[in-house]
Amino acid sequence: MRYTSHAVETLIDEFAKLPGIGRKTAQRLTMFILHEEKEKVESLAQALLDLKNKVSYCSLCQNVTDKEIDPCNICTSVKRDKRVVCVVEAPNDVLAFEKTNQYNGLYHVLHGVISPLDGVGPDDLKVKELIHRLSETDPETSIKEVILAINPTVEGETTVLYLSKLLKPLGVKVTRIARGIPIGTELEYIDDATLTRALEGRSEL
Amino acid sequence: MRYTSHAVETLIDEFAKLPGIGRKTAQRLTMFILHEEKEKVESLAQALLDLKNKVSYCSLCQNVTDKEIDPCNICTSVKRDKRVVCVVEAPNDVLAFEKTNQYNGLYHVLHGVISPLDGVGPDDLKVKELIHRLSETDPETSIKEVILAINPTVEGETTVLYLSKLLKPLGVKVTRIARGIPIGTELEYIDDATLTRALEGRSEL
Repeated sequence: MRYTSHAVETLIDEFAKLPGIGRKTAQRLTMFILHEEKEKVESLAQALLDLKNKVSYCSLCQNVTDKEIDPCNICTSVKRDKRVVCVVEAPNDVLAFEKTNQYNGLYHVLHGVISPLDGVGPDDLKVKELIHRLSETDPETSIKEVILAINPTVEGETTVLYLSKLLKPLGVKVTRIARGIPIGTELEYIDDATLTRALEGRSEL
Repeated sequence: MRYTSHAVETLIDEFAKLPGIGRKTAQRLTMFILHEEKEKVESLAQALLDLKNKVSYCSLCQNVTDKEIDPCNICTSVKRDKRVVCVVEAPNDVLAFEKTNQYNGLYHVLHGVISPLDGVGPDDLKVKELIHRLSETDPETSIKEVILAINPTVEGETTVLYLSKLLKPLGVKVTRIARGIPIGTELEYIDDATLTRALEGRSEL
């Protein structure tokens, strides 16, 4: 059985296509929208369209940016160390690092990881663009260190391996972020692989 | 810290205004939209606008319907018993009853319940419209029974009490749906109030 309104049904179907939103949640959202002021709904619809029309990717770091701002604000910032580049999987990861306020270099967003099962190879990622950035020879801005900050999944590890083999011959320092126990957890609940990495990566006090 | 794209930020803010969607989920949805095909995003935006532009309320039962279909499909169906009206709180409740395939009468959607704390009185609900429907005198279609199927919350109970006092003097049969133990549950986990109602409402075998 369906609603008596076609427009209501259509919006429920559209909402239900979004990730993590089932039909019940889609119904609840639709009922909320139904009682919402028209202007507010229009601004949501406009924001959706703007995302597709106004957002583009920074020609340097491949992070999301508005079309009129390229290179993006991070790449053009004079306060940042242009000789260090942190390679991440997605724009969300850039945000995570920025939140720490501890990293002052640039970024490079791959937009994915190597995943043969999903048919994603190095050519589907922004690897070419990273290599191109490394070809910069001006000593002031040429990249000295590439930090690989890719999610420690199977696909992520594959990507790290691939990138390190690709980048090292170019004479650039390649590092990866530490894998170990997260702050605030208890050792007994940490999995074996993480504990092993934490032991291997121990540092002298 | 925010994203480097204003359009991305705007959509995250808009999504986060929806009920049950926090900033993390809003970010995830926005990233999904970013990688979605433009046509699909446009159809979501259009569905949002259509909901506000094309949906209206049935002049009889007050349920949602498309603007060009008034009275709604349920109210005009020749297969339905027009002498029984089930009073519910919201359009979702109509859907719940329709799913059972067991109810063949009409509906009346109140669009809320009496809730003095929230400043919602009988005049804010579609009570006038219900009274108006009861004034129909044609014996073929005049309403013989009003079934109150309102959520058994404090506000719902208040509304049931109010409506029964209002409707009984009009010479119409007023009933309410049974409160008791739901199918498939175990007695030991049922709360006192429900068990009491179930005892009171026991039927002879």
